[in-house]
Amino acid sequence: MKTRAAVAFEAKKPLEIVELDLEGPKQGEVLVEIMATGICHTDAYTLDGLDSEGLFPSILGHEGAGIVREVGAGVTSVKPGDHVIPLYTPECRQCKSCLSGKTNLCTAIRATQGKGLMPDGTTRFSYKGQPIYHYMGCSTFSNFTVLPEIAVAKIREDAPFKTSCYCGCGVTTGVGAVVNTAKVEPGANVVVFGLGGIGLNVIQGAKLVGADKIIGVDLNDDKKAWGERFGMTHFVNPKSVDGDIVAHLVELTGGGADYTFDCTGNTTVMRQALEACHRGWGVSVVIGVAEAGKEISTRPFQLVTGRVWKGSAFGGARGRTDTPKIVDWYMDGKIQIDPMITHTLSLEEINKGFDLMHEGKSIRSVVVY
Amino acid sequence: MKTRAAVAFEAKKPLEIVELDLEGPKQGEVLVEIMATGICHTDAYTLDGLDSEGLFPSILGHEGAGIVREVGAGVTSVKPGDHVIPLYTPECRQCKSCLSGKTNLCTAIRATQGKGLMPDGTTRFSYKGQPIYHYMGCSTFSNFTVLPEIAVAKIREDAPFKTSCYCGCGVTTGVGAVVNTAKVEPGANVVVFGLGGIGLNVIQGAKLVGADKIIGVDLNDDKKAWGERFGMTHFVNPKSVDGDIVAHLVELTGGGADYTFDCTGNTTVMRQALEACHRGWGVSVVIGVAEAGKEISTRPFQLVTGRVWKGSAFGGARGRTDTPKIVDWYMDGKIQIDPMITHTLSLEEINKGFDLMHEGKSIRSVVVY
Repeated sequence: MKTRAAVAFEAKKPLEIVELDLEGPKQGEVLVEIMATGICHTDAYTLDGLDSEGLFPSILGHEGAGIVREVGAGVTSVKPGDHVIPLYTPECRQCKSCLSGKTNLCTAIRATQGKGLMPDGTTRFSYKGQPIYHYMGCSTFSNFTVLPEIAVAKIREDAPFKTSCYCGCGVTTGVGAVVNTAKVEPGANVVVFGLGGIGLNVIQGAKLVGADKIIGVDLNDDKKAWGERFGMTHFVNPKSVDGDIVAHLVELTGGGADYTFDCTGNTTVMRQALEACHRGWGVSVVIGVAEAGKEISTRPFQLVTGRVWKGSAFGGARGRTDTPKIVDWYMDGKIQIDPMITHTLSLEEINKGFDLMHEGKSIRSVVVY
Repeated sequence: MKTRAAVAFEAKKPLEIVELDLEGPKQGEVLVEIMATGICHTDAYTLDGLDSEGLFPSILGHEGAGIVREVGAGVTSVKPGDHVIPLYTPECRQCKSCLSGKTNLCTAIRATQGKGLMPDGTTRFSYKGQPIYHYMGCSTFSNFTVLPEIAVAKIREDAPFKTSCYCGCGVTTGVGAVVNTAKVEPGANVVVFGLGGIGLNVIQGAKLVGADKIIGVDLNDDKKAWGERFGMTHFVNPKSVDGDIVAHLVELTGGGADYTFDCTGNTTVMRQALEACHRGWGVSVVIGVAEAGKEISTRPFQLVTGRVWKGSAFGGARGRTDTPKIVDWYMDGKIQIDPMITHTLSLEEINKGFDLMHEGKSIRSVVVY
């Protein structure tokens, strides 16, 4: 079949909107009509050539929502007409990781996904006979895409695609880091570094679970109003702090935060986030993706005196089990998504979405097909 | 009163055995006759002048066992005749840390303890009128010492002093890191870096809780027999491994360890310990004390993909609550201490104990008064 898609033919070039050839779903695969997709920093990271493992030509996009249109042999968990969110973190429920009950990082199809291929080692996309790589197992910048059955989460049908697609990455990553990874408890004091889309979702996750102080840290004062909209109780701009930001935050939290979250990807900030934790029990969660080659450091004394350093990928959410719950929480009004969708674009306008992100003018731009 | 003690008059000099003046216990304090004390690396670290916060002249020693001989006003939890272990990590049960239920790092007397003083800001020791500092709130290298009530753990009276004193630091630190900090579960795979006294106690802690593979890593092949004595199932000498030690351990554990413990104090090893953890859930616990100024580093990707970096002080044990349990486990035969006490010395021989440690010839030397 044919599908319209935005192709990344090479790094550092705008996406090109073309009509591609798409093979139908093979065994264990589903064909999904993508109805909406967010444009995430990770897509830009790859398109900008910063990801050393980035493959071209490829169809980027990993934050979508759509409708199953066809299923391959052996598919039992979804059927045509089901509303789904593609999962860059699948959930096979059979691998060592899934069965551990300790992680969401299913390894069933990791090897082929990392190579831009379907689990059978081939690609479904091609353009004028040239194979085009899949991306993060999703490729939502194509109106139709093929996904492994284990990489789609079935969601309720009354959830709007334009907002629920954001649960395919940003919302789940932020809210899930609070709920699944850190397991923040009511009354806790929380510090969130970086108030982009992920940071705002961490904030609303912290509000959801009943945190006391929810402190947002950002270099941009414009983020204060954004943070407050989602439950932030205090805003700190490091540029306005005399002296050490860590000492300031330790004082503001009465001895250190119970939980801190890095949503910047900056390794210096990651260290500040750890060291702003309370002695004895503070937990710091790294969410941001750092530049290749960058390392985090601290004195081991920080750990020996009880601080814990951990990380979160896709909010610790098991793709098929937990993503639909995040959509439910949104539909039930427990979390907000609508105000975060600052720009709605057509596929033809997708490069504008990248521009808006680079210029810091959007929280989330969504392409609606 | 008078007491015999080994005084550290200055750094990098042998201890001197002298008769000191000791003031009796004030309000909330107890006088303890120390019956036995271990000689720990931390004492040597301070004596060797490596601890920038080390104070002189002082009475070192923090791993003792003895008998309460007198109590000050208001003391209710112990009485003369009780057998106790002095606690460098006290347990007031009233401070924010104790009440958090999340840490053993009681802060009630931290400020004065760090200054070598009793909670009222004075010292009980003096020599020819010159004040002598307390050390880690214990000063067990004195036959008699004064301690705050919250800094003694009452233990059973049938426990020998010569072995149970080791529960005042090494045994509890190692076993507790497994039981309290990491909470290792039955069937887990464990890697222990550094098979000194702490490492051996981590090994027997892992055996106690039913771990599967218990892998010991040490540069000294002589440690193989020691590790096996306490439950180690595999020994790895990095010098005998072709290529990367981390890759070797990941392979040996079928994808990475569930738990790793650094008992070396070497920051390079701490990184290896983290990176030898299993993707998705591996937890690495730093126990060793690093050289001043040294830092640990890793790529944040290690955390984002599910490894957790934490630390343990005094094995996460609440001093008064958990230390007596460790003694019980010893008396019940669940853990061993006797074979670890490789040398028994008189107070006059205490400097020999430091020499044996520096030469790597002892697991634990104990001074019996």
